[in-house]
Amino acid sequence: MGSAGLDRVLEPQGVLPQAAWRLDASPAIGPDEVRIRVQRLNLDAASYRQLAEKHGGDGARIRAEVLEIVGTRGKMHNPVTGSGGMLIGVVDEVGPESPLPVQPGDRVATLVSLTLTPLRITDGLAGWDGRSEQVPAEGTAILFGRSIVGVLPDDLPPELALAVYDVCGAPALVDRVVRGYREPAVLVLGGAGKSGSLALAAAKRAGARTRAVVVSAQERDALHEAGLADEIAVADARNPVAVAEAAGEGADVTVVCVDVPGCEHGAILATAPGGTVIFFSMATSFAAAALGAEGLAADVTMLIGNGYVPGHAEFAVGLLRSTPGVRALFEARLAAD
Amino acid sequence: MGSAGLDRVLEPQGVLPQAAWRLDASPAIGPDEVRIRVQRLNLDAASYRQLAEKHGGDGARIRAEVLEIVGTRGKMHNPVTGSGGMLIGVVDEVGPESPLPVQPGDRVATLVSLTLTPLRITDGLAGWDGRSEQVPAEGTAILFGRSIVGVLPDDLPPELALAVYDVCGAPALVDRVVRGYREPAVLVLGGAGKSGSLALAAAKRAGARTRAVVVSAQERDALHEAGLADEIAVADARNPVAVAEAAGEGADVTVVCVDVPGCEHGAILATAPGGTVIFFSMATSFAAAALGAEGLAADVTMLIGNGYVPGHAEFAVGLLRSTPGVRALFEARLAAD
Repeated sequence: MGSAGLDRVLEPQGVLPQAAWRLDASPAIGPDEVRIRVQRLNLDAASYRQLAEKHGGDGARIRAEVLEIVGTRGKMHNPVTGSGGMLIGVVDEVGPESPLPVQPGDRVATLVSLTLTPLRITDGLAGWDGRSEQVPAEGTAILFGRSIVGVLPDDLPPELALAVYDVCGAPALVDRVVRGYREPAVLVLGGAGKSGSLALAAAKRAGARTRAVVVSAQERDALHEAGLADEIAVADARNPVAVAEAAGEGADVTVVCVDVPGCEHGAILATAPGGTVIFFSMATSFAAAALGAEGLAADVTMLIGNGYVPGHAEFAVGLLRSTPGVRALFEARLAAD
Repeated sequence: MGSAGLDRVLEPQGVLPQAAWRLDASPAIGPDEVRIRVQRLNLDAASYRQLAEKHGGDGARIRAEVLEIVGTRGKMHNPVTGSGGMLIGVVDEVGPESPLPVQPGDRVATLVSLTLTPLRITDGLAGWDGRSEQVPAEGTAILFGRSIVGVLPDDLPPELALAVYDVCGAPALVDRVVRGYREPAVLVLGGAGKSGSLALAAAKRAGARTRAVVVSAQERDALHEAGLADEIAVADARNPVAVAEAAGEGADVTVVCVDVPGCEHGAILATAPGGTVIFFSMATSFAAAALGAEGLAADVTMLIGNGYVPGHAEFAVGLLRSTPGVRALFEARLAAD
C-alpha cells in the first residue's frame, strides 16, 4: 500500500492521496517514488473553466488562485470541481524500489491526475498569463509506485502528446464498450472536443455509425472537415429534448464529453433501451444521472468514465497518428489556446 | 415528451422535472397524469441523514425544513444531497390518456424518485415527529405517463413493501451484473442495510460467494443471523485500506450501499482487475470515483446504480418473500425507525 502514496498524505490521515485535503509535496523521494522536474501543467478543462468564470477571465487572478491551491493543498486539486489535470516534465531521480519504467533524463507525462500528485511550484508561474489550460511551470512533482507515466513519443510535439494523454482513457473505454454491441449507433455529446473527437474516432474504427452533438456551427464545420461523424447536430447538450431529437432512433452507446453540468438527462433520453451511457465529463452529477434514469424509466447502463484502461495511452496516440482528422482538431485547439 | 412531465416544470424552463428547481404541484391533472392522495413519504436515507445531522436530531426543525423544501420546490428534493425518496398513497384520479395500469382506489407506491414528483402537503406533517425516514403525510402527488408505480402487494404490510420498493433497483442490477461472471466473489459494503441485504440475497441466488462489510458488531450479528453473507467484516467503509483487507483476494463485483460520502476508493481498491463496482449510494462522488480509479491504475468497470431495471419491483418483493433473512432485517429496521 505504500506504493499508492499513503505516506504523502498529511490530512486527513488514512485516506488515499486523491481524497486528501493536503499532501506533503517535499522533493526528497522515498524508495519507490520518482521525482519529476516539472515543465508544464495541463489543467483539466472543467477546472480551468470554473476558475476562468469565477475570475471573469482575469489571468492574474486565475494564476494567483492556482498558486494558492497548490501552496495550500500540495497538489493542483480544484476544490470546487474536484478535478486536476496532468503534467509534463523530465525524470529527475528514481528511487531504488520504483517499479516505473523510467530513467533520469526521460521526458514524460504523468497519466494520473494532478489531484493525487504531490506538486511544488518554484517559479510563481511567471511564464503563464493565466489565459490557457496549458501552464508553463517550474517545480517538482512526485510519482508513487502505483502511478502511471508515459514517456513522450519522439514523433509528436510534447504539447500534442500531453493533450492526447490527458483524455486517453476515453477512446480506450469507448472501444471496449462499442465492441460489445453489433453494428451499434454511437452518439458523442461534445464530439469536436479532445475526448469527443478521440471517442468518435475509436467508435468509427470499431465499426459503429457515429453521430455527434456540438455547440456551434463553427464546431460543426470543423468536425465535418475531420470526417469523424456520419451525422452532426448543433444543439445545447444541457437541453434533453434537443439532444434526444439529435439522437434520432436512440443510440446504443452515448458518450458524454461536454465539460459543463447538466448533460445527464439528455444523454439518458437519447439512449435506446439496453444501451450504455459513458460519462467522461468531470462535471457529471452522480445523483442527476442515477435519479434521471430512474425518473425516465430508462433501462440503460451508466458508466463512470474510468481514466485508466490498460494500454490506453498507446491506443490514443495510435488513433491520433492514423486519423488525420483527429490530429487536425487537436492542433487547431492547441493553436487557439 | 409531455409524458415526462415537462409541463410541470416552472423553473428553469426546458429541463426535466428532476433537474428543475421548482415544479407546479397543483392537484388538477393533465390528460396523461395520475393524482395520488398521499399517505406516507419515505425519505431517502442520505437525505434524512443530512437533515438530521444539520439539525442535531431536533425533530421539529427537521420537519420544518422538509415542509419548507416541499413548499419552495413543489417536490421533496433535498438541495444538499440531491436525493428524494418515494411515497405511498391511494389513486385519486386517472387522466383519460394515462398509460399507467392503475385505477382510482388502488393503494400504490411510486417507484420514481420524489425529486421529480410534484408534491403538495396539506397537513403540515402534523402526524410526524421528524425523527424517522417514514413520514405520515396528507396531500397530493402527481404521476406522469412515463412514471413507474407499483400496486402494493396484499400479503405484505405497506410499510414493508414501501421499504423494499425504495431500493428495488439494487437487487435487480446486482443480479444482472453478477450473472456476467463465472463463480464470482461479491463484496457488499453496507451489507446489513436495506439495499445491501437485498443485494447480498440477489448475489447469493445468482450463485456468488458473498462477503459483506458492516459498520458494527451489532450489524455483523444481525447479518450473520440472516445468513446472507459467507463472510462478514466489521470495518469503516470510508477507510480504503480496511475495506481492501476485508475483500481478501479482490472481489469480482463490489456493491456500495453505504449512504455516507467517501466510500469510492475502498470499493475500487477492493475490486479485482476486470471486476465491476456498482455504486448505489446517493452520497457517491462522480469525480472521486473517476479520478480514484485512474489514480490507482485500476482496470475496473464502474456503474452508476440505475434505480430502474425492468421487473425490479417484482424481483425485489420475490427475494423478500423467499428469503426469511432479508425479511427479518427489514422488519427489524422498520421496528427501530
